[in-house]
Amino acid sequence: MLAPVATSTSVRIDSQRLWTSLMTLAGIGATPKGGVCRLALSELDRQARELFARWAREAGCTLRIDAIGNLFARREGSDPALPAVATGSHIDTQPTGGKFDGNYGVLAGLEVLRTLNDHGVRTVAPIEVCVWTNEEGSRFVPVMMGSGVWAGAFSLEHALSAADREGVTVRQALQAIGQAGPAPAAVADGAPRFGAYFEAHIEQGPVLEASGRTIGVVTGALGQRWYDVVVTGQEAHAGPTPMDLRRDALQAATRLMQQVDAIARAEAPHARGTVGYVDVFPNSRNTIPGRVTFTVDFRHTDDAGLQRMDAALRTAVQALQGARGVQVALEPVVHFPPAPFTPELVARVRAAAERQGLPHQDIVSGAGHDAVYVARQSPTAMIFVPCRDGISHNEIEDASPEHLAAGAQVLLEALLETAGRAGGVDEDRPRAAGPRRDEPRAAPQPGGG
Amino acid sequence: MLAPVATSTSVRIDSQRLWTSLMTLAGIGATPKGGVCRLALSELDRQARELFARWAREAGCTLRIDAIGNLFARREGSDPALPAVATGSHIDTQPTGGKFDGNYGVLAGLEVLRTLNDHGVRTVAPIEVCVWTNEEGSRFVPVMMGSGVWAGAFSLEHALSAADREGVTVRQALQAIGQAGPAPAAVADGAPRFGAYFEAHIEQGPVLEASGRTIGVVTGALGQRWYDVVVTGQEAHAGPTPMDLRRDALQAATRLMQQVDAIARAEAPHARGTVGYVDVFPNSRNTIPGRVTFTVDFRHTDDAGLQRMDAALRTAVQALQGARGVQVALEPVVHFPPAPFTPELVARVRAAAERQGLPHQDIVSGAGHDAVYVARQSPTAMIFVPCRDGISHNEIEDASPEHLAAGAQVLLEALLETAGRAGGVDEDRPRAAGPRRDEPRAAPQPGGG
Repeated sequence: MLAPVATSTSVRIDSQRLWTSLMTLAGIGATPKGGVCRLALSELDRQARELFARWAREAGCTLRIDAIGNLFARREGSDPALPAVATGSHIDTQPTGGKFDGNYGVLAGLEVLRTLNDHGVRTVAPIEVCVWTNEEGSRFVPVMMGSGVWAGAFSLEHALSAADREGVTVRQALQAIGQAGPAPAAVADGAPRFGAYFEAHIEQGPVLEASGRTIGVVTGALGQRWYDVVVTGQEAHAGPTPMDLRRDALQAATRLMQQVDAIARAEAPHARGTVGYVDVFPNSRNTIPGRVTFTVDFRHTDDAGLQRMDAALRTAVQALQGARGVQVALEPVVHFPPAPFTPELVARVRAAAERQGLPHQDIVSGAGHDAVYVARQSPTAMIFVPCRDGISHNEIEDASPEHLAAGAQVLLEALLETAGRAGGVDEDRPRAAGPRRDEPRAAPQPGGG
Repeated sequence: MLAPVATSTSVRIDSQRLWTSLMTLAGIGATPKGGVCRLALSELDRQARELFARWAREAGCTLRIDAIGNLFARREGSDPALPAVATGSHIDTQPTGGKFDGNYGVLAGLEVLRTLNDHGVRTVAPIEVCVWTNEEGSRFVPVMMGSGVWAGAFSLEHALSAADREGVTVRQALQAIGQAGPAPAAVADGAPRFGAYFEAHIEQGPVLEASGRTIGVVTGALGQRWYDVVVTGQEAHAGPTPMDLRRDALQAATRLMQQVDAIARAEAPHARGTVGYVDVFPNSRNTIPGRVTFTVDFRHTDDAGLQRMDAALRTAVQALQGARGVQVALEPVVHFPPAPFTPELVARVRAAAERQGLPHQDIVSGAGHDAVYVARQSPTAMIFVPCRDGISHNEIEDASPEHLAAGAQVLLEALLETAGRAGGVDEDRPRAAGPRRDEPRAAPQPGGG
């Protein structure tokens, strides 16, 4: 459904130009099914980066590229000494990705700059549009690589040494496409922090569409705990083995799988619980399964909630231990505490949507984004817009021009308010999110995807 | 555990000779893990058939081979016009099979003939030991091929045309190893019926071991209903998708999987219910499953019970239909009604165990055996002995010499009583299982394995 889009200010982004730019960028790596395949640091990625760079230069920006290939298009402010107010996302895609994931955040930022140019608006603080390297992690692991290096989640060397399936390293791929820049990549190595960072993104979930709202005011990212579970019984012939003599690993495993769902529902609406992967051995029609391996993905808005979920899962495992002759092994594999965004910036996004008369709601990001890493070093917020059927990481990923424009307009307002409007007697001082930070925030490592 | 073995008659089988023969035969295709790999109609199968044929000739038998390669070793009776009283099984194995599955039934029959020779016992009816072709079905489908052709479950031409993965047909394989015989293979084409057929076999299940009994008096084979189930939801990102907006195919499927178990337990001890195969799509740790495919294997001693199970499954499917946004498709793929064995012969096995003082119990075969096809054309019964941990179709398959000897002794007594003892004044007339049958029995098609 199409939620209403209202307007309230005179400085309006150009919906048609934004859409045209999205479709033009989507032409680089376009797939027959309407999606995009543009893997990180590929030749297609180079073409997309060059297109963005040309557009940014045409918009009067200067370009900076750092040692991990992150691109920064800078529109100077009246006070160049102030930290930049930044926005952006990524333009690499999944192998069967869509047109909007990442690309929207970058081009919404570009559209803001173009709109400010159209209206002759000068900001006090500089504005930068970031293109983060290899957010998807499809070709090179770790995911969210560029923002991760910037924030110090892992080292530059670790990222440069990562190799794809053909053995090509990030270092080699960056050099091959001419995107290994001279600027330091990590804040720890002197890369500048931001006065604030806003990222616009499609929701990649069904919440906004279901509620009929246009703007998701993202208050933070869910914490995550991931586990591997192995249930061991005894494989046996399905015919001769009576029910009371079975040690059926699948029957035991399905009880635990249902607990994963129930544990998350008990914490609704703040939690998620998913069994996504299941392997049954020997997986034969007339053999009782002897071993079942499956994964658990728990997410929650707060860490105390994650801890309750962890405790409930361990209780469920304990209750199953030895019952009907099965053994259960539970191995935690990931723990990312929740990452709340900066309240002042979140409020600024909410107020901008309010002023625009846009239907909006607070929402928590269930997926990882560059913003989650950026939040370790700089005040951060995100803006979500609906995507059709909540589908992403898929060639049929879709979003409406009106919703994309509405999100870009909210981004413009939040950036403008934060960077401050310069010129004549009504010059506003930039409204930073809080005191300048010299130390990294104690913040969690987000999960990928 | 070892159940007690008692004796009561003077004509005793030779436990050591039986064991030695089993171990000798197991040397053909022996695997490093102690099992046997001797696929149907392979060169190893030829060697095993020649060994059996030599042993049978040494025991004074004549040999007959039919068009599907079934081997019959005949020890003549005092009245050659009577239908033979038969026993046997198969000597092909699974790729990772054991020493006893099938081989035991053939060599127990041979041991009976050797013992009758040792004691100069002549029977009224002839006794035949059968080696049925390709019971396992590992190389060629359908399984239980030789007995199936004999009984008319499918045509000789259908069996001869079956090809293995390399494209070699049964016809070619039979010719290659010189086992395409001149005798008609099917009863419908003139192959003789039996006056009675007894098959000794390891249980392939845990029941006898659990009860501490040595002899399973097999009253028949379970009926079977097999299904394919597909649960369709919507795959979605595990992070952004709240619990109440999910269409999780796995969570719905696990409910149905548990119903399969519960439905069988409600019919205990007469029923089995197994989910052996599960396929989850897309099977990714952080993606909600969009589609789950799984199998259902229901077995029951009587067809009314199978029908109750079918109805209960359909009710469970209906209850799930549409709940939480999933659709369920249920497709029946196999229906074999239960196959009861011949009560007079079953009673004869029970009485023989009783006379021997052997701990015994009635038991139903959950698996398919050649005897289940033979029962379509001739009076039939089976004798089970325990196998360690109930494990079969596995290189670690094991059974104790004492149990194997006890089963062979029961077989001897049942064969002798049925064939009748000839010689002097105390000649017994053979005790057939009932009136001579000229028409095939109305009997079901058993499931394989």
